[in-house]
Amino acid sequence: MERLPGFRDFYPEPLPHQEAWSADVRNYIFDTWRAVARRYGFREYDGPPLETLELFKAKSGDEIVGQLYNFMDKGDRAVALRPEMTPTLARMVAAHARNYKKPVKWFAIPQLFRYERQQKGRLREHFQFNADIFGETDPAADAELIALLIDSLRALKLTAEDFVIRLSSRSAWQNFFQTGLPSGESTPEKENEFCQVIDKIEREEPEQTDKKLKALGFSFDQVKAFIAAAEPTAELDAILKNLAARGLDGFVKVDYNVIRGLAYYTGPVFEAFDKKGENRAIAGGGRYDNLVDLVSGGKVDLPGLGFGMGDVVLTELLKERGLLPKLDATLDAFVMIEDEALRCESLRLVQQLREAGLTVDYALTPAKSDRQFKRALESNAAHTARLERSIAGDRVVKLKKLQTREERTVTVAEAASCLSRSKQE
Amino acid sequence: MERLPGFRDFYPEPLPHQEAWSADVRNYIFDTWRAVARRYGFREYDGPPLETLELFKAKSGDEIVGQLYNFMDKGDRAVALRPEMTPTLARMVAAHARNYKKPVKWFAIPQLFRYERQQKGRLREHFQFNADIFGETDPAADAELIALLIDSLRALKLTAEDFVIRLSSRSAWQNFFQTGLPSGESTPEKENEFCQVIDKIEREEPEQTDKKLKALGFSFDQVKAFIAAAEPTAELDAILKNLAARGLDGFVKVDYNVIRGLAYYTGPVFEAFDKKGENRAIAGGGRYDNLVDLVSGGKVDLPGLGFGMGDVVLTELLKERGLLPKLDATLDAFVMIEDEALRCESLRLVQQLREAGLTVDYALTPAKSDRQFKRALESNAAHTARLERSIAGDRVVKLKKLQTREERTVTVAEAASCLSRSKQE
Repeated sequence: MERLPGFRDFYPEPLPHQEAWSADVRNYIFDTWRAVARRYGFREYDGPPLETLELFKAKSGDEIVGQLYNFMDKGDRAVALRPEMTPTLARMVAAHARNYKKPVKWFAIPQLFRYERQQKGRLREHFQFNADIFGETDPAADAELIALLIDSLRALKLTAEDFVIRLSSRSAWQNFFQTGLPSGESTPEKENEFCQVIDKIEREEPEQTDKKLKALGFSFDQVKAFIAAAEPTAELDAILKNLAARGLDGFVKVDYNVIRGLAYYTGPVFEAFDKKGENRAIAGGGRYDNLVDLVSGGKVDLPGLGFGMGDVVLTELLKERGLLPKLDATLDAFVMIEDEALRCESLRLVQQLREAGLTVDYALTPAKSDRQFKRALESNAAHTARLERSIAGDRVVKLKKLQTREERTVTVAEAASCLSRSKQE
Repeated sequence: MERLPGFRDFYPEPLPHQEAWSADVRNYIFDTWRAVARRYGFREYDGPPLETLELFKAKSGDEIVGQLYNFMDKGDRAVALRPEMTPTLARMVAAHARNYKKPVKWFAIPQLFRYERQQKGRLREHFQFNADIFGETDPAADAELIALLIDSLRALKLTAEDFVIRLSSRSAWQNFFQTGLPSGESTPEKENEFCQVIDKIEREEPEQTDKKLKALGFSFDQVKAFIAAAEPTAELDAILKNLAARGLDGFVKVDYNVIRGLAYYTGPVFEAFDKKGENRAIAGGGRYDNLVDLVSGGKVDLPGLGFGMGDVVLTELLKERGLLPKLDATLDAFVMIEDEALRCESLRLVQQLREAGLTVDYALTPAKSDRQFKRALESNAAHTARLERSIAGDRVVKLKKLQTREERTVTVAEAASCLSRSKQE
């Protein structure tokens, strides 16, 4: 039986033939995301992978349904696997907005699902690092969030050579759109359509873009001039200054090619962009000051902003640049059982070492000494540990450091602390 | 908008009013599971939460469908959210059985889904620690797995006062069933029915059990006598001796009341049982030597065994016993910005401390000194750090230890190492 197309199995390292996705690599990335988010004072949350279909429609309109894993559950509820985390987050924050001091700084690493019929080979799920701030309208919050994004990528050993944050402003584009049309002609639908055209500007043929823009009452030249000027708004200026104070200005530039496709952004928007290679977006986000109000049905009005960074493009990027550390399992000790009469006592030694926090393995069943030693080597054990009878008749432990083949004899009581100390060296 | 019934939101600690589930508690439990599994040499894997319906039917029969979140996807595939991890695991192991040295020791912490129409208030998802061993028929593998289960619970500070491993044998029960019937009358269907009756023996009325047993050709008295004798099989005996060698015999007893409901168990089975309180099963598992063969369609024949431990009962248990540590967020430092002329330099200090690995927060926008200090206290900051002009005109950092209100002045360059050192004390 096969897994579903577009879904991934995660195997331990080293990966078996033909498998691309490693649980160890995933953990390395998740651990890094978590560590940096915590350093920034962000707190972790999570929500259900299954939500009411209504929640996603409220935020993204009916068109989203075509891209969802949605169905009727056995209680006749219209439900869907989450395609993004923000609606769940807005729902959770709205439910308890009064219980938290502002600003609220939260993060999560949800798995997200999207059914895309047309694209063969494209994944239908991914994990996404989501970080959001609620309750602060000042651009200082946008800067704090972007700094977290930059430092998350730096913690994965990516540098200013590898990526850039392209900073833009949805409100600047809104202003461009609304002032560019005779009064009365600007509608939210048209504006959304306009945003979609700008969002595709780098991927679509110029003639196509020009045609679409003309239909909305604009020309491509007008739009190109606006992008080329790259005039930062007061908000963007404040964000740039704030990041410069942190010494992070080398990672950011204003770039109005970015507008972000989703309808709900209201202010500064940004993307982390792969500078070499394929010019891919590694992460993206922005301000959505009306979303909590929308999701709570007008009950809670709380400004918000956030970003999402997926694990798929990021993992590919880290692989291409050779930035993934060696993640094969290691053992602190492999306990060799050469004298079967000592098996019970050896098991006691295994238990004792593990209780001291050491990573220990051994041969479950009797095996020749050289096979056990081979397994110790294959397991990247730092030491072998062998229980022996001393001349005086009591038990001693022979520890062999596998790197140097250096051997020493210690008492059973000393074995754990010896191995722990050698680990710290 | 509300979340779906039976699903959980996980909030950061401290929990807001009426919320029961904490992301921090969840992380504490997951981290503990991971740490102990790794100490035992188990490697982490994961698979898709969505699989073909066929995979689950192959393992558990058509009846399982009534309890699943199953649907047709947009590509007309019959799919289901995973109700358990073992089928996915068997599929993954079968696909690459030859690439791994035996025994394979793997673990995962999947979220699992089950639609149960009747039970109001019951959860429809949970997380489960799954640990499995493949490729070893010897009871030494069963003992290793049970030792891991015991040590996972001990690492969460549960003791022999709190739980016991009830060890039983599916094959002993099979033997009882098959020898108890005239030859030719024992069929796999009847045997499975018999297992279901024994599985419910502690929850059902004795008359009801007796009636069901009579219909299968047995009496309740016969069954009770078999349970009371609690005669360990050779396998169980080997497991008990192995655990005794590790010093873990105080956590296990043979108890034939346990049989495990699932059809695919073949040998030793066990449950971790709450000894006080409600006599709930905390975890359960056993040997399933035919499952990989079944799931691989006869291509790979590999003995296996494993257990699952859910997060719901376990979290309730740890709460009841007062065994959850205090998990509120803490900060290494809260940077106070009292002189707005120093905001930029203070942001640089924040960045510098975070880059040194410290957890740091600050007021995003100008705020009165006492409000900032209050926030520092609410955030459980170990220190406040305040940038000041020294008499000589350069910058110094005033560090205040909030526990003692002790204050010291250091250079900007020293601040990070001072705070790191104080953290280790």
